[in-house]
Amino acid sequence: MKLLAFTADGRARTGRLEGEQVVGFAGNPDLATLLAEGAPAEAGRWPLSAVTLAAPLPAARLFCIGLNYPKPHPLGGEVKGPAHISYFLKHQAALVPHGAALRPPGVSEQFDYECELAVVIGKAGHRIAESAALAHVGGYTILNDGSVRDWQAHSVTAGKNFFESGSWGPYVTTADEVADWRQLRLQTRLNGRTVQDSPAGAMFFGLEKIIAYLSTITPLQPGDVIATGSPEGTGATQKPPRFLVPGDRLEFEVSGLGILANTVA
Amino acid sequence: MKLLAFTADGRARTGRLEGEQVVGFAGNPDLATLLAEGAPAEAGRWPLSAVTLAAPLPAARLFCIGLNYPKPHPLGGEVKGPAHISYFLKHQAALVPHGAALRPPGVSEQFDYECELAVVIGKAGHRIAESAALAHVGGYTILNDGSVRDWQAHSVTAGKNFFESGSWGPYVTTADEVADWRQLRLQTRLNGRTVQDSPAGAMFFGLEKIIAYLSTITPLQPGDVIATGSPEGTGATQKPPRFLVPGDRLEFEVSGLGILANTVA
Repeated sequence: MKLLAFTADGRARTGRLEGEQVVGFAGNPDLATLLAEGAPAEAGRWPLSAVTLAAPLPAARLFCIGLNYPKPHPLGGEVKGPAHISYFLKHQAALVPHGAALRPPGVSEQFDYECELAVVIGKAGHRIAESAALAHVGGYTILNDGSVRDWQAHSVTAGKNFFESGSWGPYVTTADEVADWRQLRLQTRLNGRTVQDSPAGAMFFGLEKIIAYLSTITPLQPGDVIATGSPEGTGATQKPPRFLVPGDRLEFEVSGLGILANTVA
Repeated sequence: MKLLAFTADGRARTGRLEGEQVVGFAGNPDLATLLAEGAPAEAGRWPLSAVTLAAPLPAARLFCIGLNYPKPHPLGGEVKGPAHISYFLKHQAALVPHGAALRPPGVSEQFDYECELAVVIGKAGHRIAESAALAHVGGYTILNDGSVRDWQAHSVTAGKNFFESGSWGPYVTTADEVADWRQLRLQTRLNGRTVQDSPAGAMFFGLEKIIAYLSTITPLQPGDVIATGSPEGTGATQKPPRFLVPGDRLEFEVSGLGILANTVA
């Protein structure tokens, strides 16, 4: 099932995608509740073209894994498989939904994209074993971990939290539709040119290890989102670097999870 | 005014401290609303000893400044005045209120405390000038930035987000009661022995610079909390290191802001 948060007829709603139509859910439970408790009765139906997509989850905690694919590091050097997972947190104010404009930082010219596979937790757990980890995944979505590289050198959190610098969506695909996350393919197109292209399975630390690690630190809750790192091909690592400029069109695609499209304002 | 969130007669409430009594607010608005809009009518009165203090803010965004006082770095070397502010984010699940037990991480013996002056934003702002910054402060509280040092070496976020490893409170003192934040004195006592003792004014980056910096990245909102770094004297920097063990009693005091007391479970 493809779960959506959207606005139609002036009201915030949730529902599921059915071809080119959106089927609303009675009571509009948020997607975290849907993942944890299943879908309720249906109420209303709209053409996809008549709705505006919203952030998939209204108050998510966003965990973002760093340096998780083989590639040149955006701040120099090459990323090797690190000894430990590293992560940072992102506030939701840093993200816009599918179709919305990305906001350049204003104080930097080093505005960059990062296509990532994101996991949405569907079942709570503390100290989850790797072998049980995938049972806690409720769904998958795409997250563009918008990055401001020179501010990332102050602290990773700074560079990753500029207001409306990243995006996520377009919807959450329930876990039952993903047979093997390692086979998912991540691609980014910048103005139609493919700049990132990697199987998710190239990650240093897979979903099972990531979920076990994070849940050792803190209990995971339904609605928690974990972005799992971005493969080679960001703007900072191109020769010469190619940072985002107003009018750029970005498409982030993960096979089976849709296309997250945004332009730079 | 000393603003409190508390439970009394089995119900979550907010109010203000008046001597040894707690005066409830009608409707129990959260402290972010109180700071932004002022206090409503009063409703109910309890002896302080009859209430249980709660987290000051129920859904705060927690910004934490790193490396902001002259001291030996907990991971080695000495902290000099850095070129830029650095910060990380903490989820509220990492904090317990005044009087609650701190939870040892379980997977590490390097559990440590950090007494910090925390600012609560009372007035929203984006790209706030240093000269206007203090007008956005609604109040002050104390935050113990609980840290797990070996996991902090994986990534600062990991070491700072262990479940219930830190604390905050006991209440929020409104900004009108703090004539000059630089004169505030931070002290930590571990089992009665003073281990941290510094004026807030020893910070490398003062509140004005911190608020201007963070608000360049993202709009600040009423209820946002900024912990401003911890002075010399954490357990990791003692010779030999002295990490927390079950039964330890901690008191974090900032002059005028009360005493935040917790024991290690």
